[in-house]
Amino acid sequence: MNVEGKHYRTIWLNEPHLKTARIINQLTLPYKFDFMDLCTLDDAVKAIKDMYVRGAGLIGAAAAYGMYLAALEAGDHSFNDDIISAADALKKTRPTASNLAWAADRMSALLLNHSGTIGQKREAARLEAQAVADEDADSCRRIGLHGLEIIKRISSKKNGGAVNILTHCNAGWLAFVDYGSALSPVYAAFDQGIDVHVWVDETRPRNQGASLTAWELSMHGVKHDLIADNAGGHLMQHGMVDIVITGADRVTRNADAANKIGTYLKALAAKENGVPFYIALPSSTFDFKMRNGVKEIPIEERDSSEVRYIEGLTREGKIEKVRICPEATAARNWGFDVTPAKFITGLISERGICAADEKGILSLYPEFL
Amino acid sequence: MNVEGKHYRTIWLNEPHLKTARIINQLTLPYKFDFMDLCTLDDAVKAIKDMYVRGAGLIGAAAAYGMYLAALEAGDHSFNDDIISAADALKKTRPTASNLAWAADRMSALLLNHSGTIGQKREAARLEAQAVADEDADSCRRIGLHGLEIIKRISSKKNGGAVNILTHCNAGWLAFVDYGSALSPVYAAFDQGIDVHVWVDETRPRNQGASLTAWELSMHGVKHDLIADNAGGHLMQHGMVDIVITGADRVTRNADAANKIGTYLKALAAKENGVPFYIALPSSTFDFKMRNGVKEIPIEERDSSEVRYIEGLTREGKIEKVRICPEATAARNWGFDVTPAKFITGLISERGICAADEKGILSLYPEFL
Repeated sequence: MNVEGKHYRTIWLNEPHLKTARIINQLTLPYKFDFMDLCTLDDAVKAIKDMYVRGAGLIGAAAAYGMYLAALEAGDHSFNDDIISAADALKKTRPTASNLAWAADRMSALLLNHSGTIGQKREAARLEAQAVADEDADSCRRIGLHGLEIIKRISSKKNGGAVNILTHCNAGWLAFVDYGSALSPVYAAFDQGIDVHVWVDETRPRNQGASLTAWELSMHGVKHDLIADNAGGHLMQHGMVDIVITGADRVTRNADAANKIGTYLKALAAKENGVPFYIALPSSTFDFKMRNGVKEIPIEERDSSEVRYIEGLTREGKIEKVRICPEATAARNWGFDVTPAKFITGLISERGICAADEKGILSLYPEFL
Repeated sequence: MNVEGKHYRTIWLNEPHLKTARIINQLTLPYKFDFMDLCTLDDAVKAIKDMYVRGAGLIGAAAAYGMYLAALEAGDHSFNDDIISAADALKKTRPTASNLAWAADRMSALLLNHSGTIGQKREAARLEAQAVADEDADSCRRIGLHGLEIIKRISSKKNGGAVNILTHCNAGWLAFVDYGSALSPVYAAFDQGIDVHVWVDETRPRNQGASLTAWELSMHGVKHDLIADNAGGHLMQHGMVDIVITGADRVTRNADAANKIGTYLKALAAKENGVPFYIALPSSTFDFKMRNGVKEIPIEERDSSEVRYIEGLTREGKIEKVRICPEATAARNWGFDVTPAKFITGLISERGICAADEKGILSLYPEFL
C-alpha cells in the first residue's frame, strides 16, 4: 500500500544483506510514521508482544521473520534446540492469535527437517519467511479482487455515484502484510477509479479506526470520514451506507463471525435497513470445528483501563493517556462480539464470495466436507 | 440527589437573601465537584450558553432563575423592556432546547402582566422560578415512582437478584433539577433496597455517560460499570441486561423517540434479544404535532472536533483535550438518532406508563386527542 506515494508493506527484509527485518512502528501511528529494525529473535518477540506490530496476518509474518532471525543466530551445534526454543518464545507472545503459532510451527518444521548445511538452512528459512509474507499479501490481494465485484455492482446501480462503505476497527493493510481484508476491496475499487467513500468507526475502546484505518485510507488517498461508533445506525436509517465490510477474528463452520466489539450492533442495523453486510477474511480465519459462534467462541475480556483512559496527542504534541471517568469508576471491557450468520450477507475470502452458511462455506472449502 | 451523603439539586437560590442562584459546575465534572454563583442575568446567560448547566430540565430551570435575576436588575421605568430583552437573551443561548424557551416565556408572561409594585413583581418572579424548578423535580420524582414498578417486577422474577439496567448518555439528576428521567426509576429502586446495577454507556463523542452518569450513580451509591458504547449488543446477547432505560430529546405523537446518537443501536439489540426497552420523559418532551420521527425530527449535526478530540484528566491532574486521529482527518458528528416506536416497549412519563404508540400516549394525554 502507499504512504505518501511510496509503496510499503508492514514488514520486509532490509537490502542489501537481507539479514534484518524492518517494520512500521504501529505504536506511534497516526502521530508519527516511523520504522523499527528487528535484528534479533528478541527484537521480533518484543515487537509482537508489545504490539509494535498487530493484526492477525502481520503477526504471523513477523513470527516467520523472527524464526529466520533465530536461524541466523542459532549455533552450529545447538541449531535444533535453538530453533525449538525460538518457536516457543514467539508463540508465548500472544497466545490467542492462531496465525502466529501457525507461522512459527511452519518455520520450525522446515528447519528441523532440513538436511543441508547451516548456511543452506538459513537460506531456506529466509525463503520460507518470505513465502509466508507473500502468501499473506496474495490472499489479501485476492480478497480485494473478489470484493471489488460487489462494489462495482453497487457503483453501477448508483450510476457511478460514490459508494459509501462503513467499516469497523482496522482490517486494512496495517493488520496484514499488505492490502488488508475488509479494506482490500476498497483499495481495489479506488485503484480502478471507482468513487468510494468510507465511514470509519472510531472503534472504542482502542480506537483502531480513528488511529489506524483513518491513517491508512488517507495515505492511499481514499475519501473517508471518522464517526463515533454510535453513528452507524443513524447513517443506515437515512440511506447513507451502501455496504458494510468488516474483518473477522474467527468465523465458525456455520458462518457466525467474531470480530471487534460493536460489529454485531452494525450488523443489526444493516439487516433492519436492508444494507448488505459482508465479512472479509483469509482462509486461516475459519474455524471448521465450531458450529455455534455465540455459544462456543471464547470472548476475551481485556483490561478495564482501555475503557477508562484514552490515548491521544496533546496540544504540545505529546502522546498521552487521559482518564475520561471518575477515578473510582469500574469498567468492563470485552474485546469482541459475535455476529450470528443470519445477519451476514456473505463472506469474502481469497477463494471467492460465498453465502454465510455451512453450505456456502463448504462450496469454497470442499476439503472440509 | 445525594453527593457524599448530602442532598443537592442542580440549581437553587442562595440563603438567606435568595437574590443569587447557585449551580453545580458541570464543566469540571467528574474531576471536580464545584459550584458557581449566578448573580446577574448575564451570569445565567453565560452558564447556559457555555454549558456549565446542560440537560433539558435543568436549562429550563436556569432560564427561569435567570429571568428572576433579570427582574431584580430591571429598572423601575424600563422594567418591561428589560424583561423582554432578558427573555430574548436567554432564548438565544441554545435555540434548540424547547424547555428553555418555554420557561423564559412563562416568566415574562407573568412579569409583563403583573399589576403590582416592582417589589411585588420581583417576589412573584422568585416564586414562579421556584415553581418551575419544583415542577421539574416533581415530574422526575413521579417518573421514578412509575418506573420503579417495572424494576420491581423484574427483581421479583429474578428472586431479588441484581436487576441489570443499561442506559445511554446522561438522563439523570444532572440533566434536570433533581431525580432525572431515565435514572429516576433506578434511584427509586435503590432507595427501596432493590438490588440494581447499571451498565453505563460511555456515550461518545461527548462522553456524558463516562463523565456524568458514572459520577452521579457513584455519588448516590448505585452499583455500576462503565462500558464502551460498542459493548451493549454483546451484553444483551448473553442475558446480561434485564432492561434498557434512556431519556429522550423529543418523542412524536406516534412514539418515535429522538435521543442521543447510538440509542437506536441499543434499541435494535434489545428487540433482537427480547430485552424490554423503555424511554423515560417528562410531558414537555412530547411533540404532539409530529407523526413520523425518522422523517420529521431535525437531527443536529455538531462540530467535528467533538469526534476528533477527547477531553480527560492527564496524569498531572489537568483537564486536557487530546486528538485521537490524524491531523487532517475529517469527521462527521450527528448528535441524535431516532428510535422508531416499534422498538420501544413503553414510555414512562410523570403521568404513568403507556404503550409506545399514539393510542397509548393519548390514553395518558387525552387533551391532545
